Amino acid sequence: MYIHAVSHYLPTQVVGNEHFTQLNGLSSDWIIERTGILERRKAAPGENTNTMTIEVVKRLMEKTDLTTVDLIVGGTYTPYDTIVSIAHEAQHFLGIADIPTISISTACSSLLNAIEVVEGYFALNKATRALVIVSEHNTLYYNEKDTISGHLWGDGAAALLITKERQNEKDFDVKALITGGAAHTSKATTGVMMKPADGGVTMPHGRDVFINACQYMPKASLQVLEQCGLTLADVDYVLPHQANLRISRNVMNTLGLPEEKLISNIQYYGNTGCAGCAIALSEKWDTFKKGEHIVITVFGGGYSYGAMLVEV
Amino acid sequence: MYIHAVSHYLPTQVVGNEHFTQLNGLSSDWIIERTGILERRKAAPGENTNTMTIEVVKRLMEKTDLTTVDLIVGGTYTPYDTIVSIAHEAQHFLGIADIPTISISTACSSLLNAIEVVEGYFALNKATRALVIVSEHNTLYYNEKDTISGHLWGDGAAALLITKERQNEKDFDVKALITGGAAHTSKATTGVMMKPADGGVTMPHGRDVFINACQYMPKASLQVLEQCGLTLADVDYVLPHQANLRISRNVMNTLGLPEEKLISNIQYYGNTGCAGCAIALSEKWDTFKKGEHIVITVFGGGYSYGAMLVEV
Repeated sequence: MYIHAVSHYLPTQVVGNEHFTQLNGLSSDWIIERTGILERRKAAPGENTNTMTIEVVKRLMEKTDLTTVDLIVGGTYTPYDTIVSIAHEAQHFLGIADIPTISISTACSSLLNAIEVVEGYFALNKATRALVIVSEHNTLYYNEKDTISGHLWGDGAAALLITKERQNEKDFDVKALITGGAAHTSKATTGVMMKPADGGVTMPHGRDVFINACQYMPKASLQVLEQCGLTLADVDYVLPHQANLRISRNVMNTLGLPEEKLISNIQYYGNTGCAGCAIALSEKWDTFKKGEHIVITVFGGGYSYGAMLVEV
Repeated sequence: MYIHAVSHYLPTQVVGNEHFTQLNGLSSDWIIERTGILERRKAAPGENTNTMTIEVVKRLMEKTDLTTVDLIVGGTYTPYDTIVSIAHEAQHFLGIADIPTISISTACSSLLNAIEVVEGYFALNKATRALVIVSEHNTLYYNEKDTISGHLWGDGAAALLITKERQNEKDFDVKALITGGAAHTSKATTGVMMKPADGGVTMPHGRDVFINACQYMPKASLQVLEQCGLTLADVDYVLPHQANLRISRNVMNTLGLPEEKLISNIQYYGNTGCAGCAIALSEKWDTFKKGEHIVITVFGGGYSYGAMLVEV
């Protein structure tokens, strides 16, 4: 399984920390110290997960041919439409008939769960060229006046073409992928929630989310390395879910890896949910060098987690 | 791949057609003539897709052992929580650590898409015993005063244990399963929608949904029969998505099969979304006879479709 191309989209409106200083009395220094976030993007009126889906599909079409896509998997927990999902919107835009089309939510972990669903379709020989879209519109459902989490969220989307066979030398090789869930833990179903009809995004137990994210992302990272017979010495970059710069640094510390190997965009985009890692991968795509190993690891609400080892 | 056990749950409150006569001036005869629906169930205050998930899991535990479940896939387009999804809620309730846990939406087609995701995990050897939950809370998001679709919707849920290997002689054998999407058609993204933050469930182009459902369910049914080397003469029952009795009858007519072979519960539960077919399968489970062939076929908003051939 290979990642052939990636694209991303970020809304143009930049919301700086001063917005939350005025709104909630949170100083920019406090926000930066606690989260690493300097600014985030906010979708314009009329933008939503479906319009952002079309944007990233258009941008992916500039990089590669999508006319022969035979599977579409979308990921979002901030849906504009749960019936006409982002995957259906992409299929409609591309005009491709009769292919499996599915949208998922495992909260901020959906990127890796979506790719694992693709891996399954490839194993079944039911698909060979899959379009994966991750699109989050956190500001549709957040409460920006919430002093606990209002300042964390940003909007954005990304799209990836995943192929069963290598298309060319520049493809990124997915060497191992695991997903799991820690919903058995006591606060997994109350740590962070997104109830469309009952309060939107809330995070009553942010500390518990933080602790579990710091535990499960390194654990999953080590598991995929072991599956590939590699060690931490082989890792060139770690791309963790972009939830909080302190979580990302904690993951690097636990793994004993230097901060130069951390890929992070939360400073500029906030927590863009399941789109965060894919946006970062898209931004840095051209800077990776042949043979480098990237560990992408995620953790999300409901306490899903996962890790994927990619060889450039 | 086998269906080892099924359970279902229906809220206790029964809403008869007279409710919509009082509310919208629709006569019961008109509703019955147009949809076949006599009554439907409505979730009580405090009930939602997650609480119904726990109900069906409890009922499935009375039928079979769930302690060794190693994959959970949920399906819903009427989520109570998109972060703590129904799959996460089930994992939390069961207390099983570290298993893949994922929720999907392909509208009313999610049952078959969820089982196809399971099929993929089985092919990857990443799971062998999967819990599939389908849970819909249409009345959370519907507008009951909508004279076009308010009277159509009902609430309900079901759970299935799907296993890679046969557990015993009573298991139902999944002989073939296909899913597809017709989102390329012109009204696929506007026929029926569910926008949590913008009007809930609406059906501006019900006629287009009707026409495409009548076209794609027979087509998909014939495809799974062909994959198995079977013909329509081998079909004992057809269980179509429970959207409208006229659609179900149209599907039977197109296939040239008599109405005795139609399984239908829409009369009593309305359109319970992706849960409808699984509820019907659960209700009739003990009445099927060894060797019988059931075609389960679905069509949903965003114009996903699918068919599955099951041998009892």
